[in-house]
Amino acid sequence: MPAHTTTSRLQLSGLCFLLQTLTIILFAIFVRYSPENSPGLCSQQLNCSWRNQDLGFQHPRFRDVHLQALLGFGLLVTFLGRYGLGSVAISILVVAFAVQWAILIQGFLYFFLNGKIYVGAQSMVSADFCTAAVLIATGAVLGRVNPVQMLLLTLLGVTLFALNEYILHSLMGVRDSGGSLTVHTFGAYFGLMVSRILHQPHTDKRKEQQDTGHQPDVFAAVGTIYLWIFLPSFTSATTARDNAESWALLNTYFSLAASTLATFVLSPVLHEEGTLRMVQLQDATLASAAMMGTAGEMLVTPFGALIAGFLAGLIPPLGFRFLTPILRSRLKTQDTCGVHNVHGLPGILGALLGTLLTALATADAYGGRLELVLPLVAQGSRTAAYQALCHLCALLVTLLLAILGGCLTGAILKIKGLNSPSDTRYLENTVLWEVAEEGCDRGASRKKPGTSTLV
Amino acid sequence: MPAHTTTSRLQLSGLCFLLQTLTIILFAIFVRYSPENSPGLCSQQLNCSWRNQDLGFQHPRFRDVHLQALLGFGLLVTFLGRYGLGSVAISILVVAFAVQWAILIQGFLYFFLNGKIYVGAQSMVSADFCTAAVLIATGAVLGRVNPVQMLLLTLLGVTLFALNEYILHSLMGVRDSGGSLTVHTFGAYFGLMVSRILHQPHTDKRKEQQDTGHQPDVFAAVGTIYLWIFLPSFTSATTARDNAESWALLNTYFSLAASTLATFVLSPVLHEEGTLRMVQLQDATLASAAMMGTAGEMLVTPFGALIAGFLAGLIPPLGFRFLTPILRSRLKTQDTCGVHNVHGLPGILGALLGTLLTALATADAYGGRLELVLPLVAQGSRTAAYQALCHLCALLVTLLLAILGGCLTGAILKIKGLNSPSDTRYLENTVLWEVAEEGCDRGASRKKPGTSTLV
Amino acid sequence: MPAHTTTSRLQLSGLCFLLQTLTIILFAIFVRYSPENSPGLCSQQLNCSWRNQDLGFQHPRFRDVHLQALLGFGLLVTFLGRYGLGSVAISILVVAFAVQWAILIQGFLYFFLNGKIYVGAQSMVSADFCTAAVLIATGAVLGRVNPVQMLLLTLLGVTLFALNEYILHSLMGVRDSGGSLTVHTFGAYFGLMVSRILHQPHTDKRKEQQDTGHQPDVFAAVGTIYLWIFLPSFTSATTARDNAESWALLNTYFSLAASTLATFVLSPVLHEEGTLRMVQLQDATLASAAMMGTAGEMLVTPFGALIAGFLAGLIPPLGFRFLTPILRSRLKTQDTCGVHNVHGLPGILGALLGTLLTALATADAYGGRLELVLPLVAQGSRTAAYQALCHLCALLVTLLLAILGGCLTGAILKIKGLNSPSDTRYLENTVLWEVAEEGCDRGASRKKPGTSTLV
Repeated sequence: MPAHTTTSRLQLSGLCFLLQTLTIILFAIFVRYSPENSPGLCSQQLNCSWRNQDLGFQHPRFRDVHLQALLGFGLLVTFLGRYGLGSVAISILVVAFAVQWAILIQGFLYFFLNGKIYVGAQSMVSADFCTAAVLIATGAVLGRVNPVQMLLLTLLGVTLFALNEYILHSLMGVRDSGGSLTVHTFGAYFGLMVSRILHQPHTDKRKEQQDTGHQPDVFAAVGTIYLWIFLPSFTSATTARDNAESWALLNTYFSLAASTLATFVLSPVLHEEGTLRMVQLQDATLASAAMMGTAGEMLVTPFGALIAGFLAGLIPPLGFRFLTPILRSRLKTQDTCGVHNVHGLPGILGALLGTLLTALATADAYGGRLELVLPLVAQGSRTAAYQALCHLCALLVTLLLAILGGCLTGAILKIKGLNSPSDTRYLENTVLWEVAEEGCDRGASRKKPGTSTLV
Repeated sequence: MPAHTTTSRLQLSGLCFLLQTLTIILFAIFVRYSPENSPGLCSQQLNCSWRNQDLGFQHPRFRDVHLQALLGFGLLVTFLGRYGLGSVAISILVVAFAVQWAILIQGFLYFFLNGKIYVGAQSMVSADFCTAAVLIATGAVLGRVNPVQMLLLTLLGVTLFALNEYILHSLMGVRDSGGSLTVHTFGAYFGLMVSRILHQPHTDKRKEQQDTGHQPDVFAAVGTIYLWIFLPSFTSATTARDNAESWALLNTYFSLAASTLATFVLSPVLHEEGTLRMVQLQDATLASAAMMGTAGEMLVTPFGALIAGFLAGLIPPLGFRFLTPILRSRLKTQDTCGVHNVHGLPGILGALLGTLLTALATADAYGGRLELVLPLVAQGSRTAAYQALCHLCALLVTLLLAILGGCLTGAILKIKGLNSPSDTRYLENTVLWEVAEEGCDRGASRKKPGTSTLV
Repeated sequence: MPAHTTTSRLQLSGLCFLLQTLTIILFAIFVRYSPENSPGLCSQQLNCSWRNQDLGFQHPRFRDVHLQALLGFGLLVTFLGRYGLGSVAISILVVAFAVQWAILIQGFLYFFLNGKIYVGAQSMVSADFCTAAVLIATGAVLGRVNPVQMLLLTLLGVTLFALNEYILHSLMGVRDSGGSLTVHTFGAYFGLMVSRILHQPHTDKRKEQQDTGHQPDVFAAVGTIYLWIFLPSFTSATTARDNAESWALLNTYFSLAASTLATFVLSPVLHEEGTLRMVQLQDATLASAAMMGTAGEMLVTPFGALIAGFLAGLIPPLGFRFLTPILRSRLKTQDTCGVHNVHGLPGILGALLGTLLTALATADAYGGRLELVLPLVAQGSRTAAYQALCHLCALLVTLLLAILGGCLTGAILKIKGLNSPSDTRYLENTVLWEVAEEGCDRGASRKKPGTSTLV
């Protein structure tokens, strides 16, 4: 086993070196900074019409980007509460590689001109959205894949994410500024599918006995507060100018508030012991953000945001209570950190809500911002109903790509002979981590009430 | 007792559902987003002259609002250090409801036009100030009221806060941009009065035996750093244009620095064991912010901010040493988290300092910003002395409203038969919380030196 | 010993009072707020040509300053992970005093006009850079000096930092916007030299037996995330206008990503047990920021940032493994928190990289921003090669000043009879701190593999 372990360690070291060398070479060949006064460049010549790049948009971004470009780390803080300390280093590794890879892949798709990729602050924001999706996907498999597999998952996940985003934004003309579809739905189902393919009965058995301390609640508290502060700006990061941004900001904010109350409504009813843990509030917060991803800039009345947020807040408690046990026992899909309840389902609902709101969109209600939110409708090249149909198709395309891509990725992770039992233990802090924390406590702590219901 | 508990839980669930439904309905009837290009709307037609709403002011706010609107959460982080983890969920519930309710109540007072409330980023900033005041009030009663009572406290507290703010800002023409009066003084004395009314001898006895671990110091450290980062912008959130904002920012910053040194001056003298805990530094930080609330934009010389901050930093150590034991034993007012020392007294001193500075205000020292800070004086409709008198009256009005409102709220919380002993235990983590943390450690740890002095 | 302790406590109290009184008096005599519409004042009359102060630069800063001025606290958060909770209060004391003192000293050097220092948001940013350097210096001696000594160290450190910065920026015309030289190199070697002078054999022996819990890893995780979010804006805080800022931002961001992968490459190879601790990732993050300090705004291609970041990420693991034991045993210089590996060496490399890039700078590659980054070269008053030579001299000047200043400071700290053994214990939480945490765990935990190699 020590021999095994040494091999794993050197394998990780070698793969990191290889990937970093690869990105350095690709960066050296392709990536350049945007030339001076270049904001006009993109909107005219590059294929980036899906993100507003005019001057009025660009300049505030250049200042705010140090916050927005790293909001994926908001998720990381969150993951501390859920995944435990033992997995944070792996998450940071995933982020560090995903950012570089996303800049390359998205650069080829959006910012490619005369054989060069021109990057700027906008590239970082895009790469961050991609990183967020990959982090969500890792949430489903955490604790059951080793770092080498995690890097391969990132490599493939980023590529597929960029492909899906390109199809949705550039080919289908669908607007999904906060990433209900591209980030939350894609990330969750991609990760779940990988988890399904990697299913190993004996591994799952062993996880059953895990019991977690109370430390994660500390992280969940900090993470929830962090999310309240930064999620509104994440959801509105790529929305149109200041006025429209304000809607997405306010809508997200209202839905956060309502989802919190929803948790307090449901939790005492569902759990006889009446325990409400911080992580449940955090789940509600994330779910409401997933819900607001597409619809955030489309909701024209605040009470709509309250209702949507309230519904989003109901999903995670119900999901953990009723869906996760089924997923685990019937569909043999282990969901380490409940991404299905927190990102998957709310993401789908958010996409459906976006579809509904698109169908209802009128120039009266939107005023001048219709051109920003639904440019094709405003220009008359599509009717609102047709645009809504496109939104619905986008959901199907996303699910299809996530599931097929997840199968492919899972198969690759399995084929390569990388997931030997000792490798699996490798992540579980015996080798890599001094701190004896396990991956995630949600599976373990949530499972008990769930199983007791079904058995 | 379990029957009791189940009732409590369902009561909370039902009340949350009721309140959320109520706000959704009220939002559906009244609340709309400000129409496009609306910044002019408010300043012309709506009664919001107390907050600068011209274009130059509005636009930076739209971008920064995701930070400023949630700075109440800075207090939350702080509360982690003081109230312990067990109360964070309750605080988040308070915030989630207070924000919605404040938007309604403040909307009726300031943003009401043609039967609709027009909300925007400005509403969120205002609602956040209100939420901060309510969070301070909850600090006085934490650990002795159940969540249902807490929600009723929030409902009444928000309403009274908005009323007090309206009287001060719109009727009396008093400027209190950082909330020395409206946030700190009102919040502290409102909470203390509720605490006095809810006084139960046997409950207080039981709290005496509590001993806290050292974990809160971790939170206090993080909270102090967080406050250093965000308090300057909180204090200057509603100040006039960029130039004036800079004064409030710099003054708050200088006073933070001086208050820290004051703690190091006083702490070794007061405590024979020489122990200085992180939470003391955090108290000094909060006290200096309360002190700077009114005066932040009026102090025209940096050394004034240093002196004020130094004095503010002296209040909490002296207060915890000499005042809290008297408050507890003579006035039978338990102050779970010492809001009297940290928010109440510094808030009053800040208001008095603001009065003094207003009386001394001259066009020479202020230059062009006199019109922004004290518009009525600049326009010649009031003399500086009369304006100072108004400031003094505002302090009395605030204290009166806080005390009367606190009595009323306390009486309502008591009458409704909601505070049975089992209900009280309900908050104390036996039922609601798995984590066995108690409400706050300040009462317990501070009490020992205090009692030993008096007994 | 209790008598000793009481004396120490009162000594600290008295010194704090004295220093605060001193700064209040000096502020009262000299410091004023910049008059209205004064941004023009500085660039015309005051000696502040090294920091861009035109209107276009000033205004965004006034808004962002609440973030940037306190980014030194990012380091503080970091220090939580490394220094343990017991030292945070001392660090905050250092910050609170250093900020006031830096505003005075830097004010005399840069913002002095007609017998007054005119402060503004820019002064806070400058003071924060100074504070960061002093915090780095304290990292080398933490746990072996008492608070009184720490205050004297701050007093002298700030003065010397400002002197060095003045020589580099104003006299030698060297550009070091992110502080590779002035902050990281100066801070590290100044602290190391003080540590060398204060060397006490028996004290160091005692530290050998220390063993730390795993709590710091929690802080290291939070600190790493915090650094990812804020370091890019710290490095680009004083760079030229928006366009150039974007380069520094992106370069820092890319180098952070690459340094993380470098840690994952090296750590499994160096450590047989394969343990990778969060604090290693944090070290890599800091090292890459130190590396980017000078070069951030000069790197014209993204792959350069990747390579530099990768190299920076290799330094701390190698340094802790091979250099720290030599430093400790041969040079008798204890480096409590490894500032040599994390700030010192990467800072020197960053300065050399900056020299190289300056020598290679051409108007073609830089376009219009050459005037902003290297104004003397753009105006033709210096050749690029001569400017590079100045950069190299600046490194030598900085090292010289740091080492001489460190000797002087160490000698003063030693002479004054302040470092009696009981005083040393004073910091070690027996007296000042209830929480029984020791200063730093890096020395202890890192030492074991290191010593086993050498012995």
